[in-house]
Amino acid sequence: MVTHIEHDVVTNVETERANALKTFTFDALPLQLGGSFGPVTLAYETWGTLNAAADNVVLITHALTGNTHAHDAERPHDTRVAWWNPLIGPGRFFDTSRYFVVCSNVLGGCYGSTGPSSLDPVSGQPYGMRFPVVTIRDMVRAQRRLIEHVGGRRIAMVAGGSIGGQQALEWAVAYPELVDRVIVVAATAALTAQAVAFSEVQRQAILSDPRWQQGNYAPGEGPEAGLAIARMLAMITYQSEESMEMRFARREARRVDIASPGGYADLGKRFDVEGYLYYQGNALVQRFDANSYLYISRAMDLYDVSEGYASLEAALRRVRSTALFIGIRSDFLFPAARVRWLAEQVSAVGGDATYVELDSPHGHDAFLKEWEQMNDALNTMK
Amino acid sequence: MVTHIEHDVVTNVETERANALKTFTFDALPLQLGGSFGPVTLAYETWGTLNAAADNVVLITHALTGNTHAHDAERPHDTRVAWWNPLIGPGRFFDTSRYFVVCSNVLGGCYGSTGPSSLDPVSGQPYGMRFPVVTIRDMVRAQRRLIEHVGGRRIAMVAGGSIGGQQALEWAVAYPELVDRVIVVAATAALTAQAVAFSEVQRQAILSDPRWQQGNYAPGEGPEAGLAIARMLAMITYQSEESMEMRFARREARRVDIASPGGYADLGKRFDVEGYLYYQGNALVQRFDANSYLYISRAMDLYDVSEGYASLEAALRRVRSTALFIGIRSDFLFPAARVRWLAEQVSAVGGDATYVELDSPHGHDAFLKEWEQMNDALNTMK
Repeated sequence: MVTHIEHDVVTNVETERANALKTFTFDALPLQLGGSFGPVTLAYETWGTLNAAADNVVLITHALTGNTHAHDAERPHDTRVAWWNPLIGPGRFFDTSRYFVVCSNVLGGCYGSTGPSSLDPVSGQPYGMRFPVVTIRDMVRAQRRLIEHVGGRRIAMVAGGSIGGQQALEWAVAYPELVDRVIVVAATAALTAQAVAFSEVQRQAILSDPRWQQGNYAPGEGPEAGLAIARMLAMITYQSEESMEMRFARREARRVDIASPGGYADLGKRFDVEGYLYYQGNALVQRFDANSYLYISRAMDLYDVSEGYASLEAALRRVRSTALFIGIRSDFLFPAARVRWLAEQVSAVGGDATYVELDSPHGHDAFLKEWEQMNDALNTMK
Repeated sequence: MVTHIEHDVVTNVETERANALKTFTFDALPLQLGGSFGPVTLAYETWGTLNAAADNVVLITHALTGNTHAHDAERPHDTRVAWWNPLIGPGRFFDTSRYFVVCSNVLGGCYGSTGPSSLDPVSGQPYGMRFPVVTIRDMVRAQRRLIEHVGGRRIAMVAGGSIGGQQALEWAVAYPELVDRVIVVAATAALTAQAVAFSEVQRQAILSDPRWQQGNYAPGEGPEAGLAIARMLAMITYQSEESMEMRFARREARRVDIASPGGYADLGKRFDVEGYLYYQGNALVQRFDANSYLYISRAMDLYDVSEGYASLEAALRRVRSTALFIGIRSDFLFPAARVRWLAEQVSAVGGDATYVELDSPHGHDAFLKEWEQMNDALNTMK
């Protein structure tokens, strides 16, 4: 018994180590928009074990302000501590007793991977806006190096939502020979003009904040108001008219102690939805780098799966993976109709694509909330 | 002949005078949120002649950044010089040979009426944020004083879109005995949480701009970046995914000479939609006061037709006018379903309400673009 307990303890310690943030650094990455950039460090976490054939890798790709912590083995039932927690773990869809699950922070990020807040080894200063404009394709190429580094020879599944979904799609197109199954959630072949427009307003809020200082702000002295405003707007686009009506309607805020980005008094009153947005804005400022926000959101805008190919069809014809596309009824950032259309295009050129729609009022964010529906959708692929 | 020519010339001059901006000042206005404010000046334009019975007044109410110039008698076919130009004039729906058409700048505005940029007669300084929070109801009460001033005894029609539609609705509820017909375009009983949220992000962009200076900026030294960002976001909400896809899709901008609010270089490239939004942002900065933007947009958010009544039904039961509600299929700021619902509620309590929907892809702005459909919709009321 004591031995068994000790074994458990040891196992836990090892699990904890296994789930600690690891890093992998390589010299240089050729960039889609030209030139080469390096050194590149990718931070990542893994769960489960690589099998002997090295073909059980599951790559999970995160969204705009996401990080490597898709799953928390210590608190597997807490949806707040890891962003796809209920979908990952022993016996879950992304079964860590069967797969070797990897989640890396994107190139350009601020959760351990090289990004604009990283120190340029040449100058010893943060890159700031000297960081190159990176694309979804660059992020995926960097991930490819990481998968090699961890010994993966095949990708059993690559899955992600939003910008993570763009990455999953890009994996299936860029490396068709490596990917068995691809799961693209709430992502499309390319953003709509409206989505680019929302994205650009967010960036302008950051770029116009004098504390941004051309990107050369000191840590902790960044464009807090600008980033908070960007987040406020983003949060609207992640939800829907329907869900905001359910959550807030025209209720007045009970608490008015959260400062707005501008810090000025409420005009007339404070609506509940306003207090919520201030809270969300403040929260992101505490945890995210404004320059990373600029770069990653720009990668989202710039992404077009067909770029570099003769046509969209030519790009999609490359896909060899079994593909699952998941749209969300109430998503207006990556509209369900466009996710469905993409799945149809893959089928039309001979691919094995399925489309499933989440019947959720929660808008784009449903892929981070609707656990039962997400699980059901994923299991259509089993 | 010469006399005739001279008469024509004189007529033109008189017409010009008749369409010049007039003002009316009164001492004090009791405010919905408490207290009283004055003196209040309303700037207005009129077209046509008040009849002997003084019952042929048509009041046209403008939208957020609109002004008194709903019609241009000199250039009646130019849609750019006056915002409802094709709908107003001799023989047109708002027939100036039959009606005495009045359009006033709202209380809080910056096109001649008293607003935050007006000089406080006590201090000799602009009111800035010492201007009181005004509501749609206050705007309408001020308009009521104006109608009395011009000698109107009945309102044959009151019509407007967006915030102008809120004012039209408020007229029918506040002064049912005065209004024969009311035309509410792209407006609802109250804004959705999502619309309030969009509105608040816009205001925060202004309030966070250091040049805003708590509202005490000198003329021409205001929060240009903040106001431009607010306008960029507003322009997205005035259109639709569909119309933006039609107009911009993912095309690259041909011109990159228009400065963005932040003034920083384009990241990777400039999308056409981005250049368009910069242009729109810059254009508003040239013509609109940032503090007026704060106050008028806030009035829009705060409006709830039922406020001060026992219920929505109690408010709507007051309506005695023949009411036409016009929704726009692709409007997500004032969703068509909610405009329709409002019309149904008026009918349900015994009112004479009709709903017509514009089948337009142009979003909220369709009431300023779809002239044929607007005209057809209006004529359902004839």
